[in-house]
Amino acid sequence: MQTSTNTSYRFSNRVGNIPKSFIREILKITAQPDVISFAGGLPNPASFPIEAIRQATSKVLSNDGANVLQYAPSEGYMPLRQYIADRYARKGMQVSAHEILITNGSQQGLDLIGKVFINEGDNVILEKPSYLGAIQSFSAYQPSFLTVPLLDDGVDTLELDELLKNKDAKLFYAIPNFQNPTGISYSEIKRKQVTESILQSQTLLVEDDPYGDIKFTDKEYAPIKKYVKDRGILLGSFSKIISPGMRMGWIVAAPEIIEKLLLAKQASDLHSNYFTQRVIYQFLMDNNLDDHIAKIIDLYKTQKEYMINCMKQHFPDEVRFTNPEGGMFIWLTLPSLMSSYVLLDHAAKEKLAFVPGKVFYLDDAVNNTLRINYSNSNFDEIEKGVKILGRIIKTLISKTNISVLEINP
Amino acid sequence: MQTSTNTSYRFSNRVGNIPKSFIREILKITAQPDVISFAGGLPNPASFPIEAIRQATSKVLSNDGANVLQYAPSEGYMPLRQYIADRYARKGMQVSAHEILITNGSQQGLDLIGKVFINEGDNVILEKPSYLGAIQSFSAYQPSFLTVPLLDDGVDTLELDELLKNKDAKLFYAIPNFQNPTGISYSEIKRKQVTESILQSQTLLVEDDPYGDIKFTDKEYAPIKKYVKDRGILLGSFSKIISPGMRMGWIVAAPEIIEKLLLAKQASDLHSNYFTQRVIYQFLMDNNLDDHIAKIIDLYKTQKEYMINCMKQHFPDEVRFTNPEGGMFIWLTLPSLMSSYVLLDHAAKEKLAFVPGKVFYLDDAVNNTLRINYSNSNFDEIEKGVKILGRIIKTLISKTNISVLEINP
Repeated sequence: MQTSTNTSYRFSNRVGNIPKSFIREILKITAQPDVISFAGGLPNPASFPIEAIRQATSKVLSNDGANVLQYAPSEGYMPLRQYIADRYARKGMQVSAHEILITNGSQQGLDLIGKVFINEGDNVILEKPSYLGAIQSFSAYQPSFLTVPLLDDGVDTLELDELLKNKDAKLFYAIPNFQNPTGISYSEIKRKQVTESILQSQTLLVEDDPYGDIKFTDKEYAPIKKYVKDRGILLGSFSKIISPGMRMGWIVAAPEIIEKLLLAKQASDLHSNYFTQRVIYQFLMDNNLDDHIAKIIDLYKTQKEYMINCMKQHFPDEVRFTNPEGGMFIWLTLPSLMSSYVLLDHAAKEKLAFVPGKVFYLDDAVNNTLRINYSNSNFDEIEKGVKILGRIIKTLISKTNISVLEINP
Repeated sequence: MQTSTNTSYRFSNRVGNIPKSFIREILKITAQPDVISFAGGLPNPASFPIEAIRQATSKVLSNDGANVLQYAPSEGYMPLRQYIADRYARKGMQVSAHEILITNGSQQGLDLIGKVFINEGDNVILEKPSYLGAIQSFSAYQPSFLTVPLLDDGVDTLELDELLKNKDAKLFYAIPNFQNPTGISYSEIKRKQVTESILQSQTLLVEDDPYGDIKFTDKEYAPIKKYVKDRGILLGSFSKIISPGMRMGWIVAAPEIIEKLLLAKQASDLHSNYFTQRVIYQFLMDNNLDDHIAKIIDLYKTQKEYMINCMKQHFPDEVRFTNPEGGMFIWLTLPSLMSSYVLLDHAAKEKLAFVPGKVFYLDDAVNNTLRINYSNSNFDEIEKGVKILGRIIKTLISKTNISVLEINP
């Protein structure tokens, strides 16, 4: 029998468009236990409700194992969809369980939205910088990306409005709460301005909200979906409030959109893991989710404040950083001529990792930013890591004679 | 604030290409408890290892909960990939764990393969009839489908060879073991002939094998992947041998293909449910999979034989049916002028369901076939359902005066 020697494969054009995840590459490096990692976006495992999940699993398998392990509807487990709808209602946004589709984390939500909306060459607007995972998901459907800068209180709404008026984009993708990577949140005014612009356009808002519940402030922001209604699609996730390894999230959208997403969901993997849906629902029935979230908030808020204090103490004045009101990330801006890749090279030698900001941009414009995660490091690691970073930055400044005048405006 | 009245959405072209799953529509109907359903492709819940899964879950959460609930590598849990590779090795096919990617059932495998290989308009060859889920997955990437008839011992290899020579297809999708929907298996000769044809072409074989372990015979067939080597991609699944609700399967492919599939996997949902991967692996460590599969085989084999005997007893001679050596389905061919949709209308009134064969075809050529599932009905249901079918078919024959001469050749 002939043996094949042909190993050149004819891949689709789209696969060349999907950027590699630099973050997941870094995560491989940081898998070593003695590395201090500010790189990932990992929840703190101290926040995982391990014993409660064990009990919930035992219960659903004992009570209804034959169904729990069987094929299930593509839409997701109806009581879980109803729970999610009820939770939005308690927060002031009325949605029906039929407007909710269960997905494998928000990431699959992004993929399904790309599949259902994006034709090759369609314009898609992103915040600048934006979540790399969304860029990956959408890229597979070969859109043309347009970007709008993030300001301290949310997207630059004047630029957004210009783009919406002139570029006929299919989608505007935004993370209005404690954005990844910057930690920035949209003010109420910005939410209203975005709403006005969206409603006057043909563009749909895709609002990603994985961090909204991890909130260190009493301020209450409604999802923009509440204002734009059927012109918005909202993504939610259990990853940051229960467990990311369980890959469970959801999409909220108008029934006409859900119908198409459901078709794409069936074609993609029939339905989300039903065993896990039932375990999560049982956990939610037997435990108070808000009490659980309060513990996560306590933990992350303390870590964030400790890190901010360390940064104030150990960083030179030339470094600017955000002070997020929730979520998991701080965004650093170095002096304009300093490269965060050079900083990473030095940091890696001292077993410290973070993500250079450039990976969150579609162009090569910005080299002097970085994303720092605080949710998955303890006080010792935070202090030690920030000290190392501060020392390297000071050395780099002195070496290159970068003066205060050269800081980014 | 302006209220949106615009509810016309601009969906992608591809979403219009994905056919609705008629099967999943039927499953909604058959969700009623008093319906006899030969329609689904559901494993028998009596075969689910509920207590063993409960114990495995308890163990992994108690021993390693902090990792089990955390984000994980996109490739899948390495020991699970190694287990799958070792199992193939025991069956005579050497593959490395690095050639295995964990997916959300085989269905996601099909989607990822479509994403990574199919450009709009590319030729993809299917068996005729073929698995509807594969047609759905591939359709999202807008190929041109070509089909090759299935004969009693596998695909028509002369027609296949012609197509491979003249149509430069990207993929040939086949289910060589106990095919869905027909129950047909490829003979060893056909496997070798397919191998020769594939190796002389630029086309990749996509070999779907969800049923291969559910085997009622001592005959041993190697996956065609073993012969075509790097020119083949093999899909496997735990759905039929452990639990479909856990949505866990895998792809076996050359490292160069796995690299691209991995990129698509990251973009699609980061990684498969890690909690479930760990539970399944623990189950596999603490239980003998082959012993478990032997119990499933006993169950399904008995049910299949009972159903075949009922069919022999209650069906008129004009009805032909396959007698599969494994898997979950029997394929019925009615007299050529009889419509299986008309049969379904009558059957549904007597609370009996099955799937008309037409949904497994891409053209409208065949109206007189149907798929019957035997894995998920007990003896009483099988006997009652086959009696009903036999009675309706006889009535339809007498009404339409269809003679034996009009049976399909």
